[in-house]
Amino acid sequence: MIRPTDDGNRYELASPTAMPKAGGFLWNQKMMVQITCRGYAVAQFMQPEPAKYSYAPNLEAKTFMQPEQNYYAHHPGRFVYIKDEETGELFSAPYEPVRAKVDQFIFSVGKSDIRWTVEHLGIRIEMTLGLPTHDVAELWTVKVTNVSGRPRKISVYPYFTIGYMSWMNQSAEYRKDLGGVVGSCVTPYQKAADYFKNKYLKDKTYFLCETEPNSWECMQSAFEGEGGLHAPSALLEPELKGSDARYETPVAAVQYRLALEADDNREYRFLFGPAYDDAEIQAMREKYLSKEGFAKSADDYASYIQKGAGCLKIETPDKDLDNFVNNWLPRQAYYHGDVNRLTTDPQTRNYLQDNMGMSFIKPEVARKAFITALSQQEESGAMPDGILLAEGAELKYINQIPHTDHCVWLPVTLEVYLAETGDYALLDEQVKSMNGDTFTVFERFCRAMDWLLNARDERGLSYIAQGDWCDPLNMVGYKGKGVSGWLTLATGFSLNLWASVCEQQGKKGEASRYRAGAKEVNEAANKHFWDGEWFARGITDDNVVFGTKKDKEGRIWLNPQTWSILSGAASKDQIPKMLAQVDEQLSTPYGVVMFAPPFSGMREDVGRVTQKYPGSAENGSVYNHAGIFYIYSLYTIGEVDRAFKLLRQMIPGPSEEDYSQRGQLPVYIPNYYRGAWKQYPRTAGRSSQLFNTGTVSWVYRVFSECLCGLYGDADGLRIRPQLPSSWTGIKVTRLFRGAKFVLDVKRAGVREVTVKQGDKVWPEARVTGIQAGEIYELTVLVPQ
Amino acid sequence: MIRPTDDGNRYELASPTAMPKAGGFLWNQKMMVQITCRGYAVAQFMQPEPAKYSYAPNLEAKTFMQPEQNYYAHHPGRFVYIKDEETGELFSAPYEPVRAKVDQFIFSVGKSDIRWTVEHLGIRIEMTLGLPTHDVAELWTVKVTNVSGRPRKISVYPYFTIGYMSWMNQSAEYRKDLGGVVGSCVTPYQKAADYFKNKYLKDKTYFLCETEPNSWECMQSAFEGEGGLHAPSALLEPELKGSDARYETPVAAVQYRLALEADDNREYRFLFGPAYDDAEIQAMREKYLSKEGFAKSADDYASYIQKGAGCLKIETPDKDLDNFVNNWLPRQAYYHGDVNRLTTDPQTRNYLQDNMGMSFIKPEVARKAFITALSQQEESGAMPDGILLAEGAELKYINQIPHTDHCVWLPVTLEVYLAETGDYALLDEQVKSMNGDTFTVFERFCRAMDWLLNARDERGLSYIAQGDWCDPLNMVGYKGKGVSGWLTLATGFSLNLWASVCEQQGKKGEASRYRAGAKEVNEAANKHFWDGEWFARGITDDNVVFGTKKDKEGRIWLNPQTWSILSGAASKDQIPKMLAQVDEQLSTPYGVVMFAPPFSGMREDVGRVTQKYPGSAENGSVYNHAGIFYIYSLYTIGEVDRAFKLLRQMIPGPSEEDYSQRGQLPVYIPNYYRGAWKQYPRTAGRSSQLFNTGTVSWVYRVFSECLCGLYGDADGLRIRPQLPSSWTGIKVTRLFRGAKFVLDVKRAGVREVTVKQGDKVWPEARVTGIQAGEIYELTVLVPQ
Repeated sequence: MIRPTDDGNRYELASPTAMPKAGGFLWNQKMMVQITCRGYAVAQFMQPEPAKYSYAPNLEAKTFMQPEQNYYAHHPGRFVYIKDEETGELFSAPYEPVRAKVDQFIFSVGKSDIRWTVEHLGIRIEMTLGLPTHDVAELWTVKVTNVSGRPRKISVYPYFTIGYMSWMNQSAEYRKDLGGVVGSCVTPYQKAADYFKNKYLKDKTYFLCETEPNSWECMQSAFEGEGGLHAPSALLEPELKGSDARYETPVAAVQYRLALEADDNREYRFLFGPAYDDAEIQAMREKYLSKEGFAKSADDYASYIQKGAGCLKIETPDKDLDNFVNNWLPRQAYYHGDVNRLTTDPQTRNYLQDNMGMSFIKPEVARKAFITALSQQEESGAMPDGILLAEGAELKYINQIPHTDHCVWLPVTLEVYLAETGDYALLDEQVKSMNGDTFTVFERFCRAMDWLLNARDERGLSYIAQGDWCDPLNMVGYKGKGVSGWLTLATGFSLNLWASVCEQQGKKGEASRYRAGAKEVNEAANKHFWDGEWFARGITDDNVVFGTKKDKEGRIWLNPQTWSILSGAASKDQIPKMLAQVDEQLSTPYGVVMFAPPFSGMREDVGRVTQKYPGSAENGSVYNHAGIFYIYSLYTIGEVDRAFKLLRQMIPGPSEEDYSQRGQLPVYIPNYYRGAWKQYPRTAGRSSQLFNTGTVSWVYRVFSECLCGLYGDADGLRIRPQLPSSWTGIKVTRLFRGAKFVLDVKRAGVREVTVKQGDKVWPEARVTGIQAGEIYELTVLVPQ
Repeated sequence: MIRPTDDGNRYELASPTAMPKAGGFLWNQKMMVQITCRGYAVAQFMQPEPAKYSYAPNLEAKTFMQPEQNYYAHHPGRFVYIKDEETGELFSAPYEPVRAKVDQFIFSVGKSDIRWTVEHLGIRIEMTLGLPTHDVAELWTVKVTNVSGRPRKISVYPYFTIGYMSWMNQSAEYRKDLGGVVGSCVTPYQKAADYFKNKYLKDKTYFLCETEPNSWECMQSAFEGEGGLHAPSALLEPELKGSDARYETPVAAVQYRLALEADDNREYRFLFGPAYDDAEIQAMREKYLSKEGFAKSADDYASYIQKGAGCLKIETPDKDLDNFVNNWLPRQAYYHGDVNRLTTDPQTRNYLQDNMGMSFIKPEVARKAFITALSQQEESGAMPDGILLAEGAELKYINQIPHTDHCVWLPVTLEVYLAETGDYALLDEQVKSMNGDTFTVFERFCRAMDWLLNARDERGLSYIAQGDWCDPLNMVGYKGKGVSGWLTLATGFSLNLWASVCEQQGKKGEASRYRAGAKEVNEAANKHFWDGEWFARGITDDNVVFGTKKDKEGRIWLNPQTWSILSGAASKDQIPKMLAQVDEQLSTPYGVVMFAPPFSGMREDVGRVTQKYPGSAENGSVYNHAGIFYIYSLYTIGEVDRAFKLLRQMIPGPSEEDYSQRGQLPVYIPNYYRGAWKQYPRTAGRSSQLFNTGTVSWVYRVFSECLCGLYGDADGLRIRPQLPSSWTGIKVTRLFRGAKFVLDVKRAGVREVTVKQGDKVWPEARVTGIQAGEIYELTVLVPQ
């Protein structure tokens, strides 16, 4: 029912009911559309804040992207009704709103388009959605083919929702001059000053038809009538009535009356999107709305996506895995790095990690992001809660809540950039901040590290304020005393990483200062957080240690264990104890949960996370971002099989049972799967359907650096594959500093990894003197 | 199709499709529910801000009450599905979601309950909704009767929406111990401080069944399945599956399997509402969920409503009008005055006028409101934009925008209170304000009048800032220079009214100061706003007069004409010119519009009103609040027929065409009917369906004071009926200062109104020395 195409470039689903929320997403630098197999869509564009052009049927809250979106009959969507004019029978493609049992259904998610093939009543409908590369619009192709073997009379009714545009002003009419339905609204506001902010917003929604339709309807209630969306009254008539919508919910529906000979077909093209005025609509029509325009746009967009193809191709015994890593993983990383989740104020930790992913795709983007982020460093050395990317942008939502972890991510993400590029020159760049002070990148990193060292209490533990990397731990330290176990350990990891860079740069004073700092925080962490078999999560304002065996809920948290390994705080005696406890308490068939057991109700000295639904979002979910760090840490200590098992669990499938439990195609990694596996087995594993996650750049890193074992240093490429024990070998193609590495990795009777180029063996399994443009065909022998 | 019951206490609609949005509303001091004839509902309760317990299917914006609400399949509602177990046939009451063509339909809106009778497939469903007087809950009775004349097997499925409760935490399950479905959520927040605000919110929604059902379903998607809401998949099975909802959209649906003999019936009772915890749910069940509990609650609630019966009953040749004035008008005024529109920060002008209506119903409430409002007077004498009624309340929405008219409403509303009560002692009350200063009511009124006199420019015209009584005139004076024609005239009216009170109080100095002030503003208004045939609306920051014959849109505004009559600014020469222009430019079959022509697009120096949809809300709508002032002003100059025609237009009906064009039952006056009669005749006259409006207290005043001609002064009751010329007489019962006046008003050959009590003629048509408890049976002769 779910299968990749042979080239791996598409994923196909053959039922609209098996995984109702399964969808795909397309984006460009100005917009994003997520569309389900059944035709419901969430589309947003930037002006500069996220805005809609196809709205819900009621006044919707403006909010951050929500996980586990719900759909309902009038949810925004893109549909085509088909009526047999001889029998009156009706169905709709892709599936909603009629929900007829169709004879054939294929939902096909590609990297640069999304398609459906739906067959019913002897009519085949092929729908394709594409986006332009630089404009905000949806490009829709609807092909109608008579496969019944006899002449047919049918009507085809594209029905595109416009919805409740605005309480101030909304309307729609068919514009013969522009060739389609145009909805208009005014973005509501009350303060006079806001008028000037809204003045140039794209408040029009257009649905343009390349081929003039026979009739049209612009009023939702007139279209639907008493029949309801599953059997709209308007479709009982020979023609749509052509009502305009006057402060009534608008819709874009048109009718094509067709007489089709056997095997005959028609192809229609539509353009759907927002605009400022008629001139813009006209210009969009001219630019895109033709066979040639669509073809050119599709080519351009495919080229744009191709630029995000990444640097790694693998061939392993697991074809589904290969497909994900080769085709989908870099695409998701590219999305994050290229458009920063379509927000104007990404959280600093997200911004840094998303751009870390760009180190593998477009390192120059990652470089620029470090400069941008550091230019917003505060005078104290602290990093702000979010990085402002657009003029007039403001910190919104969670970014208004003080978090204390942002500095940690600087060395953690820089490591990847340096390993990938060797561009240590970045460290010497001068960066002027908003405050007017100017420091080099190196100095700014030092200031951030000093801030971390300062932001600790008398025990040497890191303050948590209203949150660290687990946002909703908002009441652990809101009184100013509470500390974070994870952040203390993360500080250790970060200081060690930065000390290594200092050493590499010959800055001995700094190196020893940060090395000593790391030692100090690791010791403090061991003294105050070690609970016998694992590290605790923190200590509250009232000096209560939590995340310990005394706790009934939130007893053990994944992140402190992970980062105690990364920081070096965990000893060889401690690690096996921790791993056993993670296995026992945190593992599920869908990955490890962030902590367990989930909280069933408010714990006031911990905060909001304890009020979230058990197993959802952070409250004991399989939070993939935490999971991938654990996997990474396992690789660093050679726990290869344990790591790989979890890594594989992160990607839906390949069994039908697994797909349908998760409810998602393997075209991206969601931010979480539901946890609470013991409490709520029915829903455990369910995908959040939210593809915004810092997870993905780390997954890319883990495949490249850990599984394939490819890690750059200042002068070369170290090669240490870590294959799961059941594999005898893999093939890898890796682009690195302009050269191409083609690796044939196999098990052999060697003691250590041995890298051969022809007859030559590279010492220390490390290739140096890499020449851009060269192809390095290597045989990599790994111990059995 | 629309008819009042014989006692006038109910209005009945016999079709669910003729007026789809027609509904009724019930309230108590803590909640409000507006429900349509088809079963869709908007319910809110105060904790202390408005909150929901039956939510939309998506994340809805928190906003002020919207006009012209839209409904869609998954909109919150209360429904009962009926399935014939022998044939599988299905229908739903009241009408949604199945929308079957039922054999009988009656939607019956009463003053203290709302009922439906729906008959189909030989089954009669009678549904009744009531509210408790002091608690937040809906009391539902569903009676099922077999009217088919043969034994039947059916299933009855109440289906009450719970909807998308919260992105943080939502669930529902059937609680056998509590006897119903209980949904739970956590109100989302991000700042730690907000936790404490949310801590005791009623985050549970319960649906309790007096009779234990045979099966139940708590998950929306499981109930609906692929069948859709019009034919839910769950109803194809013998029993509902009983899924819990785990961070899935919850629903409350239960099944009763029945075998009914011919003419047999069953009666079910349900309780639906919000609660803090299980104990509260249990307590509500015990208090209400029984035949006796419902009956007692209905009695109590009817008594509560009866307290708002008002002081006026009329008997005229227009029975529909009588019914409205006697039954519905005081109820709507009572709603406004008793619960202040269920907001914690009513706009000051609304608060004063809503409480002005209470002068006729519960004058002690009106008295207290003056004190409350004045206690929030600013040090400058200005009145704030809103009056805070609850601890922790804040000015929200439009109340954050500076308006300059609030002081005007003090004398304007006080006049009614004094006329009704003669309670001049109020003026001597000491009122301490939030700032700590203490003044008498009299002094505070003087300070407000002085503020009005000060808030004028060098020409003597009143500044408008970001708005006056037409809220969205937000850019006329936002730079600090623009002035308002209406406000200047309203200041004149207000000063004159206050000067009269000063005179009555023997405060000669104040009286002459305010009299002189009124003269001055009237002269300034005449100098700067008179445009030859009407008064202009204002002068912008850039010194452009608008609302003049030079304007293509917004050429003539109703309010300046009205208030020039009230203030005395308009001369006997000017008035006929104005009235002719109002007739010609502003009249429609549904009342006079606020201005015309409506704006078709932004005029930057006028502001937001020009961006509203033409004919909707303020942009050239039949804005009833403006209309009733015009009517009032017409009565003050003896334009009786002109006034009455408009007054009658304000109440929907009595013709079917009129009802269906407005789309509303005559159980309240909405804040507006659509205007733009010339531009958009299809939608002109359509009701906003919003019953929150300052109109209604003025309509009550106009019926009592103008049509019936009853006006109190310090020592008596003046009687000057003003009947439309087509009427030969009316009968009036009026409660006044504890006495009861029974008037038989008839035309006779008299020169002036003559008031007889038996043989006695009251001099000057004025009854004095009124004794509480007395009944005054009067014959009132009016000139032919």
